[in-house]
Amino acid sequence: MLRLKSPGFERLLQSPVLEATFGGGEANVAVSLANFSLNVAYVTVLPRNPIADASIAYLRSHNVDTSLIVRGGERMGIYFLEPGANQLPSQVIYDRANSAIATADPHSLNWERIFDGASWFHVTGITPAISQSAANLSLKAVRTAKEKGLTVSCDYNYRKKLWQYGKTAPEVMAELVRYVDVGIANEEDCQRALGIRVEAGDWEQEVETGRLDYNKYRALCEKVLEAFPNLKYQAITLRESYSASHNGWSACLHNRQAFFLSTRYDITDIVDRVGSGDAFAAGLIYGLITGMNDETALNFAVAASCLKHSIPGDFNLVSVDEVKRLMAGGASGRVQR
Amino acid sequence: MLRLKSPGFERLLQSPVLEATFGGGEANVAVSLANFSLNVAYVTVLPRNPIADASIAYLRSHNVDTSLIVRGGERMGIYFLEPGANQLPSQVIYDRANSAIATADPHSLNWERIFDGASWFHVTGITPAISQSAANLSLKAVRTAKEKGLTVSCDYNYRKKLWQYGKTAPEVMAELVRYVDVGIANEEDCQRALGIRVEAGDWEQEVETGRLDYNKYRALCEKVLEAFPNLKYQAITLRESYSASHNGWSACLHNRQAFFLSTRYDITDIVDRVGSGDAFAAGLIYGLITGMNDETALNFAVAASCLKHSIPGDFNLVSVDEVKRLMAGGASGRVQR
Amino acid sequence: MLRLKSPGFERLLQSPVLEATFGGGEANVAVSLANFSLNVAYVTVLPRNPIADASIAYLRSHNVDTSLIVRGGERMGIYFLEPGANQLPSQVIYDRANSAIATADPHSLNWERIFDGASWFHVTGITPAISQSAANLSLKAVRTAKEKGLTVSCDYNYRKKLWQYGKTAPEVMAELVRYVDVGIANEEDCQRALGIRVEAGDWEQEVETGRLDYNKYRALCEKVLEAFPNLKYQAITLRESYSASHNGWSACLHNRQAFFLSTRYDITDIVDRVGSGDAFAAGLIYGLITGMNDETALNFAVAASCLKHSIPGDFNLVSVDEVKRLMAGGASGRVQR
Amino acid sequence: MLRLKSPGFERLLQSPVLEATFGGGEANVAVSLANFSLNVAYVTVLPRNPIADASIAYLRSHNVDTSLIVRGGERMGIYFLEPGANQLPSQVIYDRANSAIATADPHSLNWERIFDGASWFHVTGITPAISQSAANLSLKAVRTAKEKGLTVSCDYNYRKKLWQYGKTAPEVMAELVRYVDVGIANEEDCQRALGIRVEAGDWEQEVETGRLDYNKYRALCEKVLEAFPNLKYQAITLRESYSASHNGWSACLHNRQAFFLSTRYDITDIVDRVGSGDAFAAGLIYGLITGMNDETALNFAVAASCLKHSIPGDFNLVSVDEVKRLMAGGASGRVQR
Amino acid sequence: MLRLKSPGFERLLQSPVLEATFGGGEANVAVSLANFSLNVAYVTVLPRNPIADASIAYLRSHNVDTSLIVRGGERMGIYFLEPGANQLPSQVIYDRANSAIATADPHSLNWERIFDGASWFHVTGITPAISQSAANLSLKAVRTAKEKGLTVSCDYNYRKKLWQYGKTAPEVMAELVRYVDVGIANEEDCQRALGIRVEAGDWEQEVETGRLDYNKYRALCEKVLEAFPNLKYQAITLRESYSASHNGWSACLHNRQAFFLSTRYDITDIVDRVGSGDAFAAGLIYGLITGMNDETALNFAVAASCLKHSIPGDFNLVSVDEVKRLMAGGASGRVQR
Amino acid sequence: MLRLKSPGFERLLQSPVLEATFGGGEANVAVSLANFSLNVAYVTVLPRNPIADASIAYLRSHNVDTSLIVRGGERMGIYFLEPGANQLPSQVIYDRANSAIATADPHSLNWERIFDGASWFHVTGITPAISQSAANLSLKAVRTAKEKGLTVSCDYNYRKKLWQYGKTAPEVMAELVRYVDVGIANEEDCQRALGIRVEAGDWEQEVETGRLDYNKYRALCEKVLEAFPNLKYQAITLRESYSASHNGWSACLHNRQAFFLSTRYDITDIVDRVGSGDAFAAGLIYGLITGMNDETALNFAVAASCLKHSIPGDFNLVSVDEVKRLMAGGASGRVQR
Repeated sequence: MLRLKSPGFERLLQSPVLEATFGGGEANVAVSLANFSLNVAYVTVLPRNPIADASIAYLRSHNVDTSLIVRGGERMGIYFLEPGANQLPSQVIYDRANSAIATADPHSLNWERIFDGASWFHVTGITPAISQSAANLSLKAVRTAKEKGLTVSCDYNYRKKLWQYGKTAPEVMAELVRYVDVGIANEEDCQRALGIRVEAGDWEQEVETGRLDYNKYRALCEKVLEAFPNLKYQAITLRESYSASHNGWSACLHNRQAFFLSTRYDITDIVDRVGSGDAFAAGLIYGLITGMNDETALNFAVAASCLKHSIPGDFNLVSVDEVKRLMAGGASGRVQR
Repeated sequence: MLRLKSPGFERLLQSPVLEATFGGGEANVAVSLANFSLNVAYVTVLPRNPIADASIAYLRSHNVDTSLIVRGGERMGIYFLEPGANQLPSQVIYDRANSAIATADPHSLNWERIFDGASWFHVTGITPAISQSAANLSLKAVRTAKEKGLTVSCDYNYRKKLWQYGKTAPEVMAELVRYVDVGIANEEDCQRALGIRVEAGDWEQEVETGRLDYNKYRALCEKVLEAFPNLKYQAITLRESYSASHNGWSACLHNRQAFFLSTRYDITDIVDRVGSGDAFAAGLIYGLITGMNDETALNFAVAASCLKHSIPGDFNLVSVDEVKRLMAGGASGRVQR
Repeated sequence: MLRLKSPGFERLLQSPVLEATFGGGEANVAVSLANFSLNVAYVTVLPRNPIADASIAYLRSHNVDTSLIVRGGERMGIYFLEPGANQLPSQVIYDRANSAIATADPHSLNWERIFDGASWFHVTGITPAISQSAANLSLKAVRTAKEKGLTVSCDYNYRKKLWQYGKTAPEVMAELVRYVDVGIANEEDCQRALGIRVEAGDWEQEVETGRLDYNKYRALCEKVLEAFPNLKYQAITLRESYSASHNGWSACLHNRQAFFLSTRYDITDIVDRVGSGDAFAAGLIYGLITGMNDETALNFAVAASCLKHSIPGDFNLVSVDEVKRLMAGGASGRVQR
Repeated sequence: MLRLKSPGFERLLQSPVLEATFGGGEANVAVSLANFSLNVAYVTVLPRNPIADASIAYLRSHNVDTSLIVRGGERMGIYFLEPGANQLPSQVIYDRANSAIATADPHSLNWERIFDGASWFHVTGITPAISQSAANLSLKAVRTAKEKGLTVSCDYNYRKKLWQYGKTAPEVMAELVRYVDVGIANEEDCQRALGIRVEAGDWEQEVETGRLDYNKYRALCEKVLEAFPNLKYQAITLRESYSASHNGWSACLHNRQAFFLSTRYDITDIVDRVGSGDAFAAGLIYGLITGMNDETALNFAVAASCLKHSIPGDFNLVSVDEVKRLMAGGASGRVQR
Repeated sequence: MLRLKSPGFERLLQSPVLEATFGGGEANVAVSLANFSLNVAYVTVLPRNPIADASIAYLRSHNVDTSLIVRGGERMGIYFLEPGANQLPSQVIYDRANSAIATADPHSLNWERIFDGASWFHVTGITPAISQSAANLSLKAVRTAKEKGLTVSCDYNYRKKLWQYGKTAPEVMAELVRYVDVGIANEEDCQRALGIRVEAGDWEQEVETGRLDYNKYRALCEKVLEAFPNLKYQAITLRESYSASHNGWSACLHNRQAFFLSTRYDITDIVDRVGSGDAFAAGLIYGLITGMNDETALNFAVAASCLKHSIPGDFNLVSVDEVKRLMAGGASGRVQR
Repeated sequence: MLRLKSPGFERLLQSPVLEATFGGGEANVAVSLANFSLNVAYVTVLPRNPIADASIAYLRSHNVDTSLIVRGGERMGIYFLEPGANQLPSQVIYDRANSAIATADPHSLNWERIFDGASWFHVTGITPAISQSAANLSLKAVRTAKEKGLTVSCDYNYRKKLWQYGKTAPEVMAELVRYVDVGIANEEDCQRALGIRVEAGDWEQEVETGRLDYNKYRALCEKVLEAFPNLKYQAITLRESYSASHNGWSACLHNRQAFFLSTRYDITDIVDRVGSGDAFAAGLIYGLITGMNDETALNFAVAASCLKHSIPGDFNLVSVDEVKRLMAGGASGRVQR
């Protein structure tokens, strides 16, 4: 997607300028992994026009293999971003109806061929929310991935403003998650995308006050793992939203044997939190794919995504070294010179 | 439409910034007339979102009455503009499929009520090019306007990249122009939008070399006036395109009695030529509505639209005084102090 | 006034660029109320030049009726704003001597006609501080407003750098406030603009440490209400100034029957606090004019003005919905998507 | 003066940004001469505020001695600049009433002391146009300069929008020019500032068509030299204004013995012509003060000011070497590498 | 190299901002060819730091294969660019001493392996001008290229400010050109880089007046071809430098059988001419490598490099289609919509 | 040095723009002192090019005497700055090898003459870290300064990425500090630049948690004063690095009689911390040179450098009045109007 953001903390079009970059769930994960020096290909459908050309150049500059992208369709999805601060929330306005991926024929992507030589496939709950054909395409992808022996991860990513084509999220996602090995979510995604929740007090209030009850997260992981026996891992990110500028950030991971709670970071001057969930997913994939033990992988994912909050744009432009330096205790922000 | 232009002379997304203003044929005419201190209302359908809100605020800041705009539909049209220079042409990329106006029910605009108290209605060939329903809506508008005794002007405005819904331009425009009093076009619009042409050598080449044969323009006006007996005036703008930076600019007007050729301006350092045709239309409407004689009205229109080439954005932000100063010979560009 | 601000956190003219918008007490209140969808007209005197034209266009874009503005005089007031952070205070440099409003003949504004059909008039202590004629004009306005049965609100707004024409603030304001129904101030305004204070420890220190003694504010309200029997309400905003970046924000309201203390907001990453007092005034007017009960009106005003701290520029560009969402507990700043 | 210019070719406040630099006749000459490595002091009155501080820092950065500037008064003059192109003229809006120099007591500047050790004094017709006291101050300056044996140059610089305090330009300037050795003007200044003209056809038209009759300029020089026997030189700049983007640029000089016509430059893509007259004055002063022969001095002045048209801002930021390179034939603009 | 350009037409550091992109002879050719959809690899030595990382990402975004780049050395070369206009020339300031490529051990690049599978090698006279080791490295490269049967092209590219390590250009270049098939130059390069000239009047003057004597260019080609019997082609670009804003642009090509003179373009509003020579080289390579006849290849090269003058930055961001459209007569710059 | 910083919180070259200002230890101290209205000269070696010219103009604009700067050498040092936030540290990339000062002949600066009339000399540990000749030059400077009776201050300033020419920091610094009266450092500098440390738990951890043990700092001061009997003062800055956005800031001073601990400031929204150590040094010099008592001088230095954290760029652009206002308790950041 083309991401059009108002400059600084301005409201949309308060000035006649928009910062124009690219982003979107799966692309964000791809770039993050490429920055970690993995070989990553991004697969999608994009129209033949200069805007789409620029998005491909952008991905390529970040070392993502774009050779599998299919060209066709009428337009790219766009999202407008108005950054919030303090008590004023950030706002996202989607303009992605009839994008190339939303209108793509499920047969336009040859997953058999795409997965040749690949070992991991990551998908999100955003694509199946766009249109019936995109949902079909996503389902076909995960099925083929499993058949060809890839590990499949999925960020459930519930987006209230999408899901307008007549199906509810749980109807579609329940089928899709059956092919997933590594489930990733926040507390709201589990409930809204999968229809699974733990009844235990006022979640909303907890999130805003920062007094999280970790037992509930453990219970939630267990319920999801129970509902989807195919899942090997369920990870949940824990965001304490004190304000648009100040969040606490941590996560938990359940591997059916053990439940891990990560290091927690206090982020007091958020620069850009969009894409931090994707940065977590990428961090977790990196940790698991490179053979870190599960707890370390979780902490790598949380540290990586913590850093995302300090970087403008959707992409988490950090290296493995930078993440490891933070994990090793380097949260002091001292100038490196 | 939201107009997204790359800064300076950059190619689209060469830098991660887009200049974001608003524009589009009818809106440009409305703003121009409001700058000339006429009472103008702009009528369209716009979605309920902050982007559309900003476009309305933008029109309102330029003194256009926006109270007749109907809110509804899913999205605003967008166009991307890449400015050219010298031998490199400017490029427009439309992203206006499924815009609110394209999908609007023809009944959503109550033309009877809209035209109460109005004396002039301006329409272009762009709206009917977008979709069948937009074409129906345009036809309904001109018919009602004529019934209620308004003067109707129409800029034929042929846009090759539109007209994709199954009808050709002449099929639709021939019907629409039957209700028009003042026809406005460039030499290509007459041929492509109306299917009327004068066979006389290589027009394309003439335009690029600047050696225009004015008799042909007279003949073309006469053919159009003959085909549409309802037309009182046919105006044609004459652009000599030496390069993207250097144009000659003039126009002609036929009022069935006489054929007038305007003053000609040499514009050597074009700042932004988008919207100059609309600035001409607005100038002509202003001249005719305020009772200038036909030749003066033509020269007012050409001077007004000449100035547009030196103003960034779609809108012709000049006053009547500034246009008249140019008509009075003030083309020297001396600093006003 | 033209507001010229250095970009980001730069000192004035550290870079050769100034952000140029418009603002000023009464204009800020007008825009805020127009954003709340009330019908608002802004009345002032502005010169005939392109800068003043732009200020009018700016107000109009925000839906403020500008048809009552009188054109005349030599110049617009200007203020330069240098934004502070942490221990470095923001700095305002006024250049408003001889502005059109400062030199306006009190007869240039026909208040009788202006108030036709109006129900509320808002005035501040800034205009009478500029010049004797501006003070006369303000007095004439409030007197006429009362005669014609309008509700009058006044923000006492003491500005130390103004009040240079030979009268002290209390001399002028005591007369003006006699015609006011709703008095608005911060703790310093009451003392400096009206000469009314409560002796009770070190106010300055309280403000900077954030340990406010609410009984003193109640006592101060009561003293003001006693001194001006015409006042129906006295509101006082409570700003805890920990630093230029971090404030606590709340307010209190006395309606002669009861004293209300509002919700308190902790604002840790201030974007722009200029205009937050005006945002409070507008919020209170909106609450009272739309029939909220007094406590709700106070909380609406505090929530509205809390949001102002996160928006660049003088104007509080928020809707009623956004304010109500915050009042309903939505201070978490979670991304809206 | 603070110079506030809209960015690019935008109309004033089309975007909420102004480019903020400094300029003004005498300051421009001072900076130009300092760039030519002469010792130059700039003398004026400036208020005590950060804007004036920044103007002094700006001059000092360009190597101008600012130690003689007197601090006092209320405000700095401001001018707004809207850049034109093609047929649209640039526009200057002055906001300099009540500036520190306009209100300065003529005794605030001790010219006796200021001129100690100095050899040349340059003054313009702008300062005496601002106010009676500024006129008095200017007269006192030139008289003292002559008494102390300095060479005095004066750019007559007629500014129609000034001269509002009750005297006409010729009334004041005729007295002032009696103390001048080197008079500098354009064709309009001679007529309007001094009331001297040569009746010979339509000057205005000549200027705009570029067909200049050089004999008239010679005659005009001679008439001025006749009227003011103290003048040793009269120089006149010759601007052919084809458009705001395209000028021809040359000048002539009469030294009572001979009349010289300079090299002529064709400037087709003007970047910023404000200050080019001052750049000419500085070039001429430099040529004469460093002992070039009169014709070379004239050509140096024309080459220096030709280059000014390609530099943004009021100041002519070129070195002696760069001017000489152009005089030596280097007008080809080939990249220096 | 990192290219640091002052914004707009400002002198260097007139504002505290530099536009930061990348460029340099060989890189420019590589990007141009990649834009023409050829498979291109760029070979150089770059240090391990974020600036060099960004340069690689930049090349990669333009589809250039960067996998052969060797990392090492201390710094990247930098060049500062000050854009000229009219009579003010652009200025380049090199800061490339001790760059990674200047200090690279000639053995650090394994040309044998690099050339595997390649069919064409392009080199310029800039690299051998930097240091003795860079000269050695260049020589080694061309020798190996010839041994492995690649076609070798060389842009002689004389840079006066380089060549500081003790050898003259002709000493080194004469050896290097012995391995070249396609020689590319402007009239000055032949003389200064190779020491070959045709005595025939004042070349400098011709260039600046635009009255070129084509016979001299033919003679010059023939002399170069005579001196280097290995050369199959000699191309010379013909720039008529009327000013920094206005150039005529054409070229000629000698293939030992015939001498071709290209189409000529008049470029009146140059946006950025840096890199246009490289754009010509890339165009010629593209034409020859894809089997165009020699005259068409020449015209393709001239049209491609003509367009470069309208694009900011070092890189010629145009497609084959855009070049062909210009060759087909589309120089009118009409808006594409 | 030229300081090239990515805009906002972007990673280096995330956008094609760099903010270009100047900075560096000694220059920062000089500008700070000049802002405090002391007479200050800055002494260095700079090449003859426009970049160095701009750096001199920049210093001159801030009132620093630049007449003692020697011109010569090949290039200016550059440093790239990537600003961090929260857990992401700022990053400095030096490109200063072979800068004019690094390659300068120690005899190029005539310290005897430079120190004529001077009373204080400030040096840092950065210059001797660059090259052997720069170390020699520094040593010569301090020796001459002592001989001529100047007070010498030195900021030990350890920079890990420098010190590459074969000597360790303690080898060189131990000699240099023998001529110093006022030693300035942070806790790490004492250990790494001088090789002096106090063994007492985990310093690193203390810094990051903010739980500082002041007795250790006292002990460290005493050890340094013992090792260098010439030192009259040892000052140490105490930075509590909670994150890149949030620091605690204070300092201590030992004058051999007494140990003073300063006021402590909590800086929660750091704008730019580069140069804050230099701002401290300048504050201390100012306090001591103007005769403040030692404790007041320390508090002046801490308040001055606290303010630096809120100002973009290397330079501490604050006045004595602003520092004193903060010392007097004005940390509330209330708008000054």
